[in-house]
Amino acid sequence: MATLLRRLTILRIHSSRPLHQASLNQSGCNHELEINIQTEIPGPKSTKLRNELLECQQVSTVSFVSDVQKSLGNYIVDVDSNTYLDCFMQIASLPLGYNSPDLIKALSSPENIHQLVNRPAMGWFPNEEWIRYVTNVFMAMAPPGLEQIYPMMCGTCSNENALKIAFMKYMDKQRGGRLDFTEEELQSVMTHSAPGSPNLSILSFKGGFHGRTVGLLSVSNSRALHGIDIPTLKWPKADFPRYKYPLGENQDINRAEDLRCLEILEDTIREQNTKTDAPVAGMIVEPIQAEGGDFHGSKFFFQGVDRIAHKYDISLIIDEVQTGGGSTGKMWCHEHFELEHGPDIVTFSKKMLSGGIYHKKTHRPQHAGRILNTWLGDPHKVIMLSEVWKYIQTQNTLALVDESGKVLLSGLMELEKRFPGHLSSSRGLGTFCAVDCPKVEMRDEIVGRMLKKGVLIGACGEATIRFRPCLIFEPKHAAHMLEKMGEVLLEMTS
Amino acid sequence: MATLLRRLTILRIHSSRPLHQASLNQSGCNHELEINIQTEIPGPKSTKLRNELLECQQVSTVSFVSDVQKSLGNYIVDVDSNTYLDCFMQIASLPLGYNSPDLIKALSSPENIHQLVNRPAMGWFPNEEWIRYVTNVFMAMAPPGLEQIYPMMCGTCSNENALKIAFMKYMDKQRGGRLDFTEEELQSVMTHSAPGSPNLSILSFKGGFHGRTVGLLSVSNSRALHGIDIPTLKWPKADFPRYKYPLGENQDINRAEDLRCLEILEDTIREQNTKTDAPVAGMIVEPIQAEGGDFHGSKFFFQGVDRIAHKYDISLIIDEVQTGGGSTGKMWCHEHFELEHGPDIVTFSKKMLSGGIYHKKTHRPQHAGRILNTWLGDPHKVIMLSEVWKYIQTQNTLALVDESGKVLLSGLMELEKRFPGHLSSSRGLGTFCAVDCPKVEMRDEIVGRMLKKGVLIGACGEATIRFRPCLIFEPKHAAHMLEKMGEVLLEMTS
Repeated sequence: MATLLRRLTILRIHSSRPLHQASLNQSGCNHELEINIQTEIPGPKSTKLRNELLECQQVSTVSFVSDVQKSLGNYIVDVDSNTYLDCFMQIASLPLGYNSPDLIKALSSPENIHQLVNRPAMGWFPNEEWIRYVTNVFMAMAPPGLEQIYPMMCGTCSNENALKIAFMKYMDKQRGGRLDFTEEELQSVMTHSAPGSPNLSILSFKGGFHGRTVGLLSVSNSRALHGIDIPTLKWPKADFPRYKYPLGENQDINRAEDLRCLEILEDTIREQNTKTDAPVAGMIVEPIQAEGGDFHGSKFFFQGVDRIAHKYDISLIIDEVQTGGGSTGKMWCHEHFELEHGPDIVTFSKKMLSGGIYHKKTHRPQHAGRILNTWLGDPHKVIMLSEVWKYIQTQNTLALVDESGKVLLSGLMELEKRFPGHLSSSRGLGTFCAVDCPKVEMRDEIVGRMLKKGVLIGACGEATIRFRPCLIFEPKHAAHMLEKMGEVLLEMTS
Repeated sequence: MATLLRRLTILRIHSSRPLHQASLNQSGCNHELEINIQTEIPGPKSTKLRNELLECQQVSTVSFVSDVQKSLGNYIVDVDSNTYLDCFMQIASLPLGYNSPDLIKALSSPENIHQLVNRPAMGWFPNEEWIRYVTNVFMAMAPPGLEQIYPMMCGTCSNENALKIAFMKYMDKQRGGRLDFTEEELQSVMTHSAPGSPNLSILSFKGGFHGRTVGLLSVSNSRALHGIDIPTLKWPKADFPRYKYPLGENQDINRAEDLRCLEILEDTIREQNTKTDAPVAGMIVEPIQAEGGDFHGSKFFFQGVDRIAHKYDISLIIDEVQTGGGSTGKMWCHEHFELEHGPDIVTFSKKMLSGGIYHKKTHRPQHAGRILNTWLGDPHKVIMLSEVWKYIQTQNTLALVDESGKVLLSGLMELEKRFPGHLSSSRGLGTFCAVDCPKVEMRDEIVGRMLKKGVLIGACGEATIRFRPCLIFEPKHAAHMLEKMGEVLLEMTS
């Protein structure tokens, strides 16, 4: 730890490199606040407001009430004037931290006000500015090989519609490309029967999470509480790898785990296709199972998944809702895997601010109006996304993510060595990092104590801590977080 | 028609009443443009831009490309400088028309910029301003008896989550209010099996439309194309009334139709509960089946629905996504029905700008985190909604809707008399009006010819024309639309 902090002090001294200018906005103002905890958490004002909200909304998940005006960059301020270093960033959803001057400038611009007040139904009456955003911004950010886009409102719509595109593609093949629907096909839809409403399935992975609607609960498998009481479709689940860390010391055992999971995957598809009446039309997978506990799949594993999807001619949907947008050090996490065929469909939301679906041209719906809703996107979000994209390109942001991620991950590994009874399995790509605790109670205690020290970190899975800072998170912030975590663990062990 | 136009001229002369000041913004500028068609439709610039968009998106539903900067009030302008009177208003989704000065002012205010650039995860770190919007604006707009709110992103999330609340309520009763889940309940969720993932159903109505996700396609029944190729849950459908118009001349036959539908509704519930293994947990219904063809249900019918829901102790979900927000002359269309028990859950979106779910306190989830997503709403939308609500209250907007609606509906009835081979069954509440054509081709020809004359109207159902103007649509706009429609029908018949 001491070594790490020394290294960071050196990094900080040499902070004149462009890489470290991320904390400076374009007009040169510094984005830094300082951690400052003045009350118990939640403080009295937070508690009062929280209770008012709870009167009319069951949302007892609320931690504290924030002050968006005072929050800045990597720091969130609450209504009791406590300032926290935010390593969770609204569940991984703020790309440039709080009150980004670039976003403020864009949304304050009189040029953009007409976009903000008039949201057209983009499937019927889009405007020129919107078309430019779609053809320039979304297309420039597209994962390699995916030339088609449907902007959406959130990750849920994106994933639900991704399933639909996979089903449509499957049935299009069944019809041999025939474009006209038969009367029987059309009529049977109205009674939820085949052939119009066919019995098909989407394969997903144990421990995965894709959303909370009826369709997405049918492909999710991370927490019972998400799905309890809700009828779902009984779709097949395959195993997702569970690795031993550190990876370098467990290569054989992890390779065996990959092979085991790939075998199960293939078996599951075959079994579903031959022994049930709901064949597999596609599979949906997160590049890193995030909500479920930050479980990674190796390049080898994903190359196998890619090969199997291709072999059985089913659509491969990669859900990048949490991983997309830069925090793994690449714009799209699946780019790390160098897939031969690549995903047919990639979904996004969160850090991309707009939801959406990229898909291959092969998966373009044959008929108008089959993937559609009133709005098909939101200019307010895409104006911001355009600025985020400019920022990423001009500020060398992905390199910063890489560097901060290295500090974060190596620091977690050092802490793991110092506190082996508390932390294990440090892992991550970019700043998308996590570490396990032996028990949920211990994890919650660490997260709670960190909050009291002014550092906000997240939880996921059974007893995992997840880090989801924004893209302007610097090595010094990582070092600060690690320092506080060291203090917390020392307190807990002494 | 001549009578009507005379009456409107008189109305126009007496336009000093507050009711008619809706076209004046608060700083006194007039909102009026004039219909002006300069090119074929779509014009050359529209066509070029549309084709660019279609390169990367299957959205061939696009009619023309709009110019949001030039559009104003009730008039939409396209990129070829054609100006149309917009009686469709982005599928009923713009409450105050284009470039409302109140909305521009609110979104330009430096006070609000922090809300626009920092969208927190409202279920974890909401801010004070957000809590004020929820407790003041949403609660002030709530339908009578519904004291709880979940803001959502769109109508789809709202309806999907409404189904979940109904399922949760049903299972809560099955457990006799027991709060702890058993290990069996929790484990069975993970394999999509009962008791955790129970086999339950939601009853809906033939011809209804609630959305395009897997769950909502299972309760929708308006157009085969929406659902084709997509697996759904085979849930029961009951008949929704189909009336003969004019209502005044067909009271007996329509009362018989109501009784027939209510009997089928009760039979369907009983049959589903006794003859299948998926009992009815709730029913979802639109106050007016909008997408399906503007089919109305009478007060008598809905009082029967309300009574039956209560009798069988199942949740009544009223989907006000298209009808809510004022265009029927009341904030919530179901207020017209004077229900004894009232809906347990009401969903909204479109004109409310934010999606959301109102529900009774009896339906408040017992556990935290069961109705949740990353954002739980969007401050950008709620800042606008707050202004819309102020406008409705201060400008006597619902009275204007009533008056414009009367002009619109009586004008349609006059046209129907003049052109009985073309129009029938004029109907409406407020400006939420519709009229039928005998065939889809004729409907489409009327809609197309109207567009060429600079009036934008909508289509729905099999061969229905729907009118969905915004809340500042005045009698003079209705008269202008009717005048153009008269011209079109005359051309088509001469």
